[in-house]
Amino acid sequence: MREDFLKQILKDVKEGSMSEEAAFEQLKELPYKEMGFANLDNHRQIRTGFPEVVYCEGKTPGQIGEIFEALSQHGTVMGTRATKRDFAAVQEKLPQAVFHEAARIIVCKGNTDSGTLTQPEKLGRVAVVSAGTADIPVAEEAAVTAETLGNDVVRVYDVGVSGIHRLFDKLEIIRSADVVVCVAGMEGALASVIGGLVEAPVIAVPTSVGYGANFGGLSALLSMLNSCANGVSIVNIDNGFGAGYTASVINKKR
Amino acid sequence: MREDFLKQILKDVKEGSMSEEAAFEQLKELPYKEMGFANLDNHRQIRTGFPEVVYCEGKTPGQIGEIFEALSQHGTVMGTRATKRDFAAVQEKLPQAVFHEAARIIVCKGNTDSGTLTQPEKLGRVAVVSAGTADIPVAEEAAVTAETLGNDVVRVYDVGVSGIHRLFDKLEIIRSADVVVCVAGMEGALASVIGGLVEAPVIAVPTSVGYGANFGGLSALLSMLNSCANGVSIVNIDNGFGAGYTASVINKKR
Amino acid sequence: MREDFLKQILKDVKEGSMSEEAAFEQLKELPYKEMGFANLDNHRQIRTGFPEVVYCEGKTPGQIGEIFEALSQHGTVMGTRATKRDFAAVQEKLPQAVFHEAARIIVCKGNTDSGTLTQPEKLGRVAVVSAGTADIPVAEEAAVTAETLGNDVVRVYDVGVSGIHRLFDKLEIIRSADVVVCVAGMEGALASVIGGLVEAPVIAVPTSVGYGANFGGLSALLSMLNSCANGVSIVNIDNGFGAGYTASVINKKR
Amino acid sequence: MREDFLKQILKDVKEGSMSEEAAFEQLKELPYKEMGFANLDNHRQIRTGFPEVVYCEGKTPGQIGEIFEALSQHGTVMGTRATKRDFAAVQEKLPQAVFHEAARIIVCKGNTDSGTLTQPEKLGRVAVVSAGTADIPVAEEAAVTAETLGNDVVRVYDVGVSGIHRLFDKLEIIRSADVVVCVAGMEGALASVIGGLVEAPVIAVPTSVGYGANFGGLSALLSMLNSCANGVSIVNIDNGFGAGYTASVINKKR
Amino acid sequence: MREDFLKQILKDVKEGSMSEEAAFEQLKELPYKEMGFANLDNHRQIRTGFPEVVYCEGKTPGQIGEIFEALSQHGTVMGTRATKRDFAAVQEKLPQAVFHEAARIIVCKGNTDSGTLTQPEKLGRVAVVSAGTADIPVAEEAAVTAETLGNDVVRVYDVGVSGIHRLFDKLEIIRSADVVVCVAGMEGALASVIGGLVEAPVIAVPTSVGYGANFGGLSALLSMLNSCANGVSIVNIDNGFGAGYTASVINKKR
Amino acid sequence: MREDFLKQILKDVKEGSMSEEAAFEQLKELPYKEMGFANLDNHRQIRTGFPEVVYCEGKTPGQIGEIFEALSQHGTVMGTRATKRDFAAVQEKLPQAVFHEAARIIVCKGNTDSGTLTQPEKLGRVAVVSAGTADIPVAEEAAVTAETLGNDVVRVYDVGVSGIHRLFDKLEIIRSADVVVCVAGMEGALASVIGGLVEAPVIAVPTSVGYGANFGGLSALLSMLNSCANGVSIVNIDNGFGAGYTASVINKKR
Amino acid sequence: MREDFLKQILKDVKEGSMSEEAAFEQLKELPYKEMGFANLDNHRQIRTGFPEVVYCEGKTPGQIGEIFEALSQHGTVMGTRATKRDFAAVQEKLPQAVFHEAARIIVCKGNTDSGTLTQPEKLGRVAVVSAGTADIPVAEEAAVTAETLGNDVVRVYDVGVSGIHRLFDKLEIIRSADVVVCVAGMEGALASVIGGLVEAPVIAVPTSVGYGANFGGLSALLSMLNSCANGVSIVNIDNGFGAGYTASVINKKR
Amino acid sequence: MREDFLKQILKDVKEGSMSEEAAFEQLKELPYKEMGFANLDNHRQIRTGFPEVVYCEGKTPGQIGEIFEALSQHGTVMGTRATKRDFAAVQEKLPQAVFHEAARIIVCKGNTDSGTLTQPEKLGRVAVVSAGTADIPVAEEAAVTAETLGNDVVRVYDVGVSGIHRLFDKLEIIRSADVVVCVAGMEGALASVIGGLVEAPVIAVPTSVGYGANFGGLSALLSMLNSCANGVSIVNIDNGFGAGYTASVINKKR
Repeated sequence: MREDFLKQILKDVKEGSMSEEAAFEQLKELPYKEMGFANLDNHRQIRTGFPEVVYCEGKTPGQIGEIFEALSQHGTVMGTRATKRDFAAVQEKLPQAVFHEAARIIVCKGNTDSGTLTQPEKLGRVAVVSAGTADIPVAEEAAVTAETLGNDVVRVYDVGVSGIHRLFDKLEIIRSADVVVCVAGMEGALASVIGGLVEAPVIAVPTSVGYGANFGGLSALLSMLNSCANGVSIVNIDNGFGAGYTASVINKKR
Repeated sequence: MREDFLKQILKDVKEGSMSEEAAFEQLKELPYKEMGFANLDNHRQIRTGFPEVVYCEGKTPGQIGEIFEALSQHGTVMGTRATKRDFAAVQEKLPQAVFHEAARIIVCKGNTDSGTLTQPEKLGRVAVVSAGTADIPVAEEAAVTAETLGNDVVRVYDVGVSGIHRLFDKLEIIRSADVVVCVAGMEGALASVIGGLVEAPVIAVPTSVGYGANFGGLSALLSMLNSCANGVSIVNIDNGFGAGYTASVINKKR
Repeated sequence: MREDFLKQILKDVKEGSMSEEAAFEQLKELPYKEMGFANLDNHRQIRTGFPEVVYCEGKTPGQIGEIFEALSQHGTVMGTRATKRDFAAVQEKLPQAVFHEAARIIVCKGNTDSGTLTQPEKLGRVAVVSAGTADIPVAEEAAVTAETLGNDVVRVYDVGVSGIHRLFDKLEIIRSADVVVCVAGMEGALASVIGGLVEAPVIAVPTSVGYGANFGGLSALLSMLNSCANGVSIVNIDNGFGAGYTASVINKKR
Repeated sequence: MREDFLKQILKDVKEGSMSEEAAFEQLKELPYKEMGFANLDNHRQIRTGFPEVVYCEGKTPGQIGEIFEALSQHGTVMGTRATKRDFAAVQEKLPQAVFHEAARIIVCKGNTDSGTLTQPEKLGRVAVVSAGTADIPVAEEAAVTAETLGNDVVRVYDVGVSGIHRLFDKLEIIRSADVVVCVAGMEGALASVIGGLVEAPVIAVPTSVGYGANFGGLSALLSMLNSCANGVSIVNIDNGFGAGYTASVINKKR
Repeated sequence: MREDFLKQILKDVKEGSMSEEAAFEQLKELPYKEMGFANLDNHRQIRTGFPEVVYCEGKTPGQIGEIFEALSQHGTVMGTRATKRDFAAVQEKLPQAVFHEAARIIVCKGNTDSGTLTQPEKLGRVAVVSAGTADIPVAEEAAVTAETLGNDVVRVYDVGVSGIHRLFDKLEIIRSADVVVCVAGMEGALASVIGGLVEAPVIAVPTSVGYGANFGGLSALLSMLNSCANGVSIVNIDNGFGAGYTASVINKKR
Repeated sequence: MREDFLKQILKDVKEGSMSEEAAFEQLKELPYKEMGFANLDNHRQIRTGFPEVVYCEGKTPGQIGEIFEALSQHGTVMGTRATKRDFAAVQEKLPQAVFHEAARIIVCKGNTDSGTLTQPEKLGRVAVVSAGTADIPVAEEAAVTAETLGNDVVRVYDVGVSGIHRLFDKLEIIRSADVVVCVAGMEGALASVIGGLVEAPVIAVPTSVGYGANFGGLSALLSMLNSCANGVSIVNIDNGFGAGYTASVINKKR
Repeated sequence: MREDFLKQILKDVKEGSMSEEAAFEQLKELPYKEMGFANLDNHRQIRTGFPEVVYCEGKTPGQIGEIFEALSQHGTVMGTRATKRDFAAVQEKLPQAVFHEAARIIVCKGNTDSGTLTQPEKLGRVAVVSAGTADIPVAEEAAVTAETLGNDVVRVYDVGVSGIHRLFDKLEIIRSADVVVCVAGMEGALASVIGGLVEAPVIAVPTSVGYGANFGGLSALLSMLNSCANGVSIVNIDNGFGAGYTASVINKKR
Repeated sequence: MREDFLKQILKDVKEGSMSEEAAFEQLKELPYKEMGFANLDNHRQIRTGFPEVVYCEGKTPGQIGEIFEALSQHGTVMGTRATKRDFAAVQEKLPQAVFHEAARIIVCKGNTDSGTLTQPEKLGRVAVVSAGTADIPVAEEAAVTAETLGNDVVRVYDVGVSGIHRLFDKLEIIRSADVVVCVAGMEGALASVIGGLVEAPVIAVPTSVGYGANFGGLSALLSMLNSCANGVSIVNIDNGFGAGYTASVINKKR
């Protein structure tokens, strides 16, 4: 295709139907387009229609407000690890912004955005399963991320393995999902148990919840990495966003 | 459905069309079937038609031969981390067994197995991408696993980031896959670079390849867990099988 | 027993002494009861009569007050890692609640509770032995837990091995216990010394007390795990509650 | 009592019914007896009738043979981490010795030993539960230790959480035990699941089984230490002997 | 000696020169004295005349004040890791107390104390050498401890190896000491250099000074443990007191 | 040269043109000068004309003001890890001082300083490349250090590998530098990618930016140490100053 | 330049002085050349004239022989971590190959290679300084690498800081180098001492030499990373090749 | 003194009693002598008369034989971590050499050596105390080192804290020593117990003895570093030589 394109330009120049200047303008960006535009710029977010994501931690509310204002020109914007003060700064500029407090996520539908948020067809179903109540902030980060990116999300919380009947009571709903996100701290055993009970891909999120020798989530991380169940893969400690995003990528592909 | 089943039995007993003894036989196993059989036994491997998997390391060739013989009665069997001697013991009993030496995997098509291996339609395409030549055993473990479980596999080896043009030359073929398995040791940077270049889910496998402060693969593991790219999840160090299996689970779901 | 139960229902239906509807109501929950109730719901806390336990850290005083109010309907409630402010919130709703400040534990005798706290016969004796004064909060957590769960508790504090005569002076009282809980930070040597001097099971609790290369209790944890004395098992760093609970489980069994 | 004893001696000396020399002989050993003999020598092994234990690793077969010969004069001897060659050296001197190969334990009933091994009444029942086949050597070490020390042992092997129905099928037998020893490598999730399902004390043994980021059993160790289930305590990695011994101490106490 | 003592008492009782009651009073504490007094109570601090030491961190100013008041009845008291507020509480009760602010040490000469502090003859000379200005608090803790325990102390600060001429200028004074305490953070190289330049025993104190991959002093600790120089031993991170105390023990012995 | 100097003195003394006293004054410091001054005092900073550097963290504003005042007598002074309050204290004494806030560096041109800052010829060009916006403080520390020490600095920020086209757009400018400083947190993959794309020496600075299992920068540190690219060396976590300084040393040498 | 090149082609086509076909051939590879060839293929090794490098560990002698044969067609080849058996296999095919046994490096001058090895002008001088005799293999790897890449190398071995006069005796020769490679295990203090004594850039190589708590070189690595001297950067543990290569890159640049 | 020396030379030159040339020869080496010879060469080993020490591990028997032959010209030589084969090579050249097999130490009295080994007066007494039989190789290394360097050594082995009466039986002999070396693996508790019972300085040696979570001696190392007893300092894991040497340095000083 590109060869034909090149040959046509040369023929047009030769025949005079294209000026040298016009040909130059076309050709001078060719490498960039070839390597840059076609290969690189059409990256995941543009192709998938997923919104832009802002990591709010470490930025001032003022900076966050400005970033949201700028990005919302191009579509939906989502901000993770946000505080109430961050949200106030965003809302001042973009009154339509919404704050999911438990998930610490701000979502703002863009002005020019036909919108993931309103799309009638969902990508698929994501079950977000968590072990304890203290894991809920991370679980909510995963759930709201998956919802914002266009999934139907079911939440199954507080079903840790020390009272395993709680999990069995919810098995049917977990099995209804296309992807399962499993959020657990302490010993992270939930990932192995669920991995053995469902057919869907399981994305495990270790959390830093716990005390003593949990070393900021390392115990759950190692536990999940060494899971004896197949079909389980891991994201970083407390990275609910990463799990929700990866679940969406899996559901998008179908 | 279960309620109807229960009501029918009671009606049959009431009406005399079923003896008390026959009803008792039906009912006494009900909880087990309900909880055990229906929920638990129909686990992933049976439902998906994936073959049984034997982890050969730590078992004697004799034990492995016997396990293969027994399991092959029920379908295809696959053995990971196998040696030539393990294979010889299997082949003695099951001449149709095949040894993928680079992947250290034995595959034996079962006698009663209509067979994943011959299925005309593939689950989907998996690209297995590796950084260095020393990562190939792990990459092959992932590739042969994915093939055995019914995927079309493309191998893209030796495209580590220190000579990144090698990777760009192969980008089109990598982008053609439904799932990308990325295998890398040392600093594991390949996962982040690929994660930023493809739309498909990326499963990263850190390897223990390297020396000095790589701490048996910990450097690559931490690097991949902290990847700045989205859509990347991780399996354990050197766990090529786990990556190939998870890729298959993702492709199976569609 | 269950077989008899089943046969009786079928006979009653057959004979018309039980309606089909009544039989259905009985049978439809059977699997759940079988698997759920009998196996799972009659879990340790219900069978043992141990009170419900609330981990207060990370919850607001308001939440804790509400949880206590709800749980106290069913019996005694115990809250660990509680602050004075948590207690104030509980006391407002349940004036009978008691705060063990050194142990950071709130105990509230339930309204409908005949009560572990008032039972005339104790489960057995637990000796809680600690190395230094800084270990006392963890030791108290173990001691109050064991008392609340129905044990007779003797406290032997500040008998660290650097002045081992202090320990020998108290040996007789330690030996009078059915279970010994040994709480120590720094190098955790007390567990090995006591393990060699008593016949009873020893539950060792490493604490995060110390400075320098104690790494948040890791030094005591590794020391206790590697104890040269037999009959010693370990719970997590600073987990006084876990030690008191396990001691109670051991004493309950007899 | 001791005061009376002292006063009597003094009275006897005063009255002349005891010579100064005889009084001196009585008194000169008093401190030693008080501190040494009574407090220290009557240690656990002598009181409990438990056999002497020899850690064979790092000793030559010749040394082990001699140690067994010497110790067997005083009762039953047990050797852990023994090899076939160690056993051959023991058997040469003590033909009645028995080798439990899977457990790597040599047991030799002593000549003057009325004998723990033949005692009609067992201390109690110990269930040894293990996750995978690779955990069996450690599980057997626990089981044979508990048997040798006088317990009735039930073995429940290969019930890891990735196929949790296997565990539920065996729950009744596990619940019949007075103490449960839970042996698991990889992510060690079995301890938490069992801890939530049984009333008995659970002693968890992490094993070094696994690969990748299991760090010689650290993953299972951290997982078990951070178990969300109560009533669980831990011994060192691969320390089957320690778990069997501690279970015996708990059963002995009743 | 003890035998003579015993025989004399018995003789005195026999001969009537000592009443039974008086003999009983002497003898009843004998085991305790034997085990306690002779072996245990005559421990290091009493024999050496070293003052009592209070670790202030984690205690309230009020508690510290009371502890000082009580202990000062028996001699000099020294409190480490003390704050200004701790000192104020001590001074209120004991106006003669002195605060060494840089060392965070309170020293209070006891009422009944003839006094280490005023002894004309010093135990020996201790050189306290530190690498950087940030190491000075730990160095001062070592220096004031050594002074309080009766040593002549020379301070050589800020002679880190990156400008090694500073160290050489002070070598003569360092070599004049009987024991050298070497305090360094970051890479802790000073211990190896000094260890190769002096004859005296070197006690190395790693400090938590530094940033990046110093891991709270672990870099200096490992560096010092692996020192290529002989005659160097280590105390815990930031443990200036321990170094000063050990230096005093070495000097006391001569 | 030194030999000539010595011979001249001796000749002058011999001939009487120099008094013994004057010769003594010259010679008595000779060893020191020889070993001390010539070898040691003429250390890097003096020879290179690099300014004095003050590490401000852990010093009070008052101390910092005084140190700057003293050092500025001898030339330019530079203070790292400085706060606004530190700067206020310096500016009060030295109004010409400048604060680079993003870099947390105070620079004060000395009174007697002909001045590195004004030198017309630059040492060379340093490219400071950073992965994410959160890495900018460390990158600025490197950049301002390199500028202050006399380099021409180009900044290329926010070119992390997850969107690798951003890096390629800036490749030409990066390649124009004599030394490249590469600043990255999280997985630190940027160092390997740049190391494979440029000819110049690359100094990699891992940053503590990230969350979860980044362990305060350890993930980036290990990643960079294990870089598969050649020509890359590392400085400590967050040590932008060290990287800027080392880059200057490399450029100075030519 | 590229714009001119493009414009010229278009002009030539327009004017007929270049055929469409010839222009197509020139243009079709343009993006690739731009991105691939010009940017990527002209990578460091080609531009610098540095030889190809083969990492021999993990490859069979046969494979190494073949790789050397193939690569030697294009110039000098260098193999690191080679054994005598590897060398024998290379020598069979390429008799001119040379084995540096202490450095474990094979060097083979290429057939078509004008040759780095014979170049009359050296890039510069590299001093390789090592602490102990056990560090020599790593030091030699650095030294032979630097020599092969065209540097003049001086070796200063066995000058560890525990006998620092050995280092001072060699200071002049160390200071004569343009780059200093400092190789040390154990506590790695040599890097800090040298860093404070020389003006040249210092590349520190931690080695795994030592025992006890050196953790495979971690002690030296942390020590060097935390060096208090400026101008020091680090490569991976035992990575003598990396240090020699980086030194060459620095010398090449001038 | 040096000033007088300088003034005398100048006076002699002035007065003509010394030629300029002779004065030059004296003065040109002055700095070296001042800094080098006097300060540095008279290092510990020369001054103390301690023998030369060779670390044999990693050297061939042939090399070790030659090193011993060379060094024995100047006095006693001692080789640590030696094997039987190393000793055979030494004995061939130096028939008077002696092998301490348990300690893995070769000692060879030098030809020109008046000799530490035969000195009638010992430096002092060193007690080497070890916890278990597996610690004996390290304990023997310490004991033979201390003996070779001129101490009277008492060995107290197998007195670990799990049977603490064994330790108390030997307390008198331990207390008779000037320095106590305490060797223990596993949990290393012995150091704390002994540290609380003796007045002498205690040098603790952690050993790598143990299994499970002992991490090559890290458990004992951390335990000893965090010892609650005062007067205890540490050397590296398994470093019996270092402990014996340091004990000798302490005893030498008096």
